[in-house]
Amino acid sequence: MRESYREELDDINACLVGMANSVGSAMSTATTALLDADVALADLVIAGDRRIDAVRESIEERCFTLLARQQPVATDLRAITTAMRIVADLERMGDLAEHIAKVARMRFPEHAVPQEVRPIFLEAGHVAESLVAKAGTVIAKRDVETAIELEAEDDVMDQLHKSMFRELLSEDWPHGIEAAIDVTLLGRYYERFADHAVSVARRVIYLVTGERPLSTPAETH
Amino acid sequence: MRESYREELDDINACLVGMANSVGSAMSTATTALLDADVALADLVIAGDRRIDAVRESIEERCFTLLARQQPVATDLRAITTAMRIVADLERMGDLAEHIAKVARMRFPEHAVPQEVRPIFLEAGHVAESLVAKAGTVIAKRDVETAIELEAEDDVMDQLHKSMFRELLSEDWPHGIEAAIDVTLLGRYYERFADHAVSVARRVIYLVTGERPLSTPAETH
Repeated sequence: MRESYREELDDINACLVGMANSVGSAMSTATTALLDADVALADLVIAGDRRIDAVRESIEERCFTLLARQQPVATDLRAITTAMRIVADLERMGDLAEHIAKVARMRFPEHAVPQEVRPIFLEAGHVAESLVAKAGTVIAKRDVETAIELEAEDDVMDQLHKSMFRELLSEDWPHGIEAAIDVTLLGRYYERFADHAVSVARRVIYLVTGERPLSTPAETH
Repeated sequence: MRESYREELDDINACLVGMANSVGSAMSTATTALLDADVALADLVIAGDRRIDAVRESIEERCFTLLARQQPVATDLRAITTAMRIVADLERMGDLAEHIAKVARMRFPEHAVPQEVRPIFLEAGHVAESLVAKAGTVIAKRDVETAIELEAEDDVMDQLHKSMFRELLSEDWPHGIEAAIDVTLLGRYYERFADHAVSVARRVIYLVTGERPLSTPAETH
């Protein structure tokens, strides 16, 4: 019994890594849909989010069943409650990728992102993908070093977010209010995506070291 | 031992209700700070968020200790894992109240909210307070009826959010891009606050009825 319990815990962890990969693909596809105004890709992301939600439910139930049947203590118990929190972060990251796809869909056949801020969103997409890939590694290997790297990379997203506001507020923003609203919300979605990746990293740091990180990720406005 | 365990579970629940009350006060104060451009009130909310975060940590640890020491099964186990999720929703609601206070602070001595959308934010503040008050009742009494009412009231927030966009996109929006960015983000904060209240309600419905609600709260935009 003890053996299969350990196998189940490992398998749940593998599912979390798989979920991180799915979320990474969703984010990558959503960014392409956004920048290319590609409605077919946007629809793929929107339809795919249901699968990510289903994986969340399945992992939650498996964690619950482990708690009920095996009554783990100490590190194993902490690993399961950590998994239950990580799965919530990952699901939310999937939602945010879906939100980005929905903005692309809403503005189709127009581009939601004007040329001036296109490089910012291209870069934000790359950073988001890198963050979630690192989050997958952190989950797979309980790798504190990568977790710390991940936090540092979140600073890049914050800088991108600030330069996005600078563009919006520059005197020659010619695209009017609607585009400004889209860009503001899109910027928020990328930033929140990054915050949840940081949250995953911090939960693993806490699991491994027992040290609770100082604060929730700083959010720029 | 069994007796004190049940008392501990009841006491954790009482702490969740207290936390919902604190979040309600934070939201109420943040809305006043925003509408009156009152920086002293804004600072109160910002400083107070640390207390809400500390309550979250304390409740999480108490839940964890209960799991480790008492190894509950069935309904009690479900109650504890539900509490661990509700505490995350409530903490996030506190963060969102803090975000609103920070916008008020950033624009002081100006008003962040132009006159045209002031009635919308006044109403959004009332709805937010009502939602979190209902969430407190739902937690305190495991009251499914109030949980269902709460979900219906979230529709009012969605309508307010839509009318906010209508104002922003009307041809005579005279306040420029910066105010539009503020209003867009503020609208998002109120909407997410309401979504988390719905999430609390749904978690309690699941705990009481065993039926998982159909989806995460619909987000407009």
